[in-house]
Amino acid sequence: MRVWKKHVDIYEDIDKIDAFIRNSLKASQQVLNDAINDLLNAGGKRLRPAMVLLAGRFGRYNEEKLISLAAAIEIMHMATLIHDDIIDQSELRRGRPTVRNRWGNEIAVFTGDYLFTRAFDLVTQTISQKNMHHLSQAIKAICVGEVDQFESRYDKNMYIGKYLKRISRKTAILFSLSCQVGASEARCRQEVIRHLRKFGHDFGMAFQITDDLLDFSGNQDEVGKPLCSDFAEGVYTLPVIYTMLDSSYSSKLEPYIGKKDLIDSDINQIGKLVDESGGLERSKKLALRYLDRCNDSLAALPNIPARDALRELMEELIQRRY
Amino acid sequence: MRVWKKHVDIYEDIDKIDAFIRNSLKASQQVLNDAINDLLNAGGKRLRPAMVLLAGRFGRYNEEKLISLAAAIEIMHMATLIHDDIIDQSELRRGRPTVRNRWGNEIAVFTGDYLFTRAFDLVTQTISQKNMHHLSQAIKAICVGEVDQFESRYDKNMYIGKYLKRISRKTAILFSLSCQVGASEARCRQEVIRHLRKFGHDFGMAFQITDDLLDFSGNQDEVGKPLCSDFAEGVYTLPVIYTMLDSSYSSKLEPYIGKKDLIDSDINQIGKLVDESGGLERSKKLALRYLDRCNDSLAALPNIPARDALRELMEELIQRRY
Repeated sequence: MRVWKKHVDIYEDIDKIDAFIRNSLKASQQVLNDAINDLLNAGGKRLRPAMVLLAGRFGRYNEEKLISLAAAIEIMHMATLIHDDIIDQSELRRGRPTVRNRWGNEIAVFTGDYLFTRAFDLVTQTISQKNMHHLSQAIKAICVGEVDQFESRYDKNMYIGKYLKRISRKTAILFSLSCQVGASEARCRQEVIRHLRKFGHDFGMAFQITDDLLDFSGNQDEVGKPLCSDFAEGVYTLPVIYTMLDSSYSSKLEPYIGKKDLIDSDINQIGKLVDESGGLERSKKLALRYLDRCNDSLAALPNIPARDALRELMEELIQRRY
Repeated sequence: MRVWKKHVDIYEDIDKIDAFIRNSLKASQQVLNDAINDLLNAGGKRLRPAMVLLAGRFGRYNEEKLISLAAAIEIMHMATLIHDDIIDQSELRRGRPTVRNRWGNEIAVFTGDYLFTRAFDLVTQTISQKNMHHLSQAIKAICVGEVDQFESRYDKNMYIGKYLKRISRKTAILFSLSCQVGASEARCRQEVIRHLRKFGHDFGMAFQITDDLLDFSGNQDEVGKPLCSDFAEGVYTLPVIYTMLDSSYSSKLEPYIGKKDLIDSDINQIGKLVDESGGLERSKKLALRYLDRCNDSLAALPNIPARDALRELMEELIQRRY
């Protein structure tokens, strides 16, 4: 499934990024190579590196530099995915066994570390000290977001503000940063950088809300992991929070909140409640509001093909998961 | 137990580094703070950051800069310890429960990541791009060394060259790097940097060999973990390799090589064989040879108090574990 149908030239850039990533990650240990190749071959849409390049188009970009930076951000993202799967004890990612599932937590820990350090090495050779600092701050926020999510499992007092703060840290920040550093390294004007950073943040919020929606309503094969896996792990996302806010449904959903070892009939019932209460619908609306903001940011940017490509990305998100 | 008895002024610097580390690592998540404080309070001799400062004394150093760099290297070391304990499934470190033991693998993964990213953030604000690259390469080597050690567990074909390569990656490189970047950031002459880097490497080799010796012969309380834990985990270190090279002992030790679930009487027998064969003695000799090389490196350096402090460090290593 391709994200860009109109701006297909982006795929040439993504191929270059992939080649760069493969080349940068060659390790002397076979198991590291296998784990990395498995992850690269599993797909993934390379949205973050694509954003780095698209943001760079708004300025005077140096292609070689941007590709290295884009690759570094994707490698960091891969590292967080691998470590994230350890926390979540995930068996599947993008429909394939996770690194921890196939090679064990131990190899997963150091594969992630290896990727982090490769990514840092790439950025130290590429970008300004200021942008390196932004990048470090982003990875720090992701760590804090992940720890927060883990610590709040089975928390009966989740609320919207807490949820939004968490997804802002764990997801939106890396999209936001991708746009920001791409634009900044291409020496865009401050105002352009600001709009792009905001676009990235709002897109990331919509992206994560959509991801959380699909945990309830998606096609299991497309999502690549069992339905309601977040809920089963005690991670209560936006559709659940909305359902709990509706007094005619909260009493029905409450018995499942905080409950471990859910069985199939529980899962079905939870899915039904979250849907019937309008929790999914309201979540979708919030995602659309973030996408409206994305549109506002794009409207403030110069009218160049990269802007249309970013808009196409939004339109695809509205229609389907990727 | 103090390392420096003559150069006690080093402890003032170490206190400054500790204060800097505590200040840099304050997190918004309580569990992160607890895990980090636990690790800091557990002791550790801060050998690597001390080496950064001592190496800096050979040049025109900026104390503030060196303390920040020394703290970053110690934080990276802490991160590798936490992740290392996940790989080794260790329950104890320095005689106290490990992060993974107390908070679980999940928190341990992200506490380590948090530390890595804080350390990188510190160094990006402090040191030259060239030294950042060296630092990335060192952390990469540590990851590869750890994966290699994990992958070679229960390997019946360990040999000295493989062992030395592994400990060079997993331990010596960070000592070597500490000396190198401390000296380099203090703008020492190339020759001085080279001698200090070599000192760090050889000291690190002696340090790890001594550590591996103490797994067999140490006082369990001082070492802070059960005896023969490496062997029990399938990690065959130098004393074992030497014992296997002695035909009159190899046949007796062989039944235990590759064996899992060793019982107490096995452990006693292994300890006895490794000792009687001279495996411990030969390992100690090799450690001393590395320390001789350290002496050669020191002899080539200017005669300043920092040189004596490095020599005191070696002398302490000869006499005991720290």
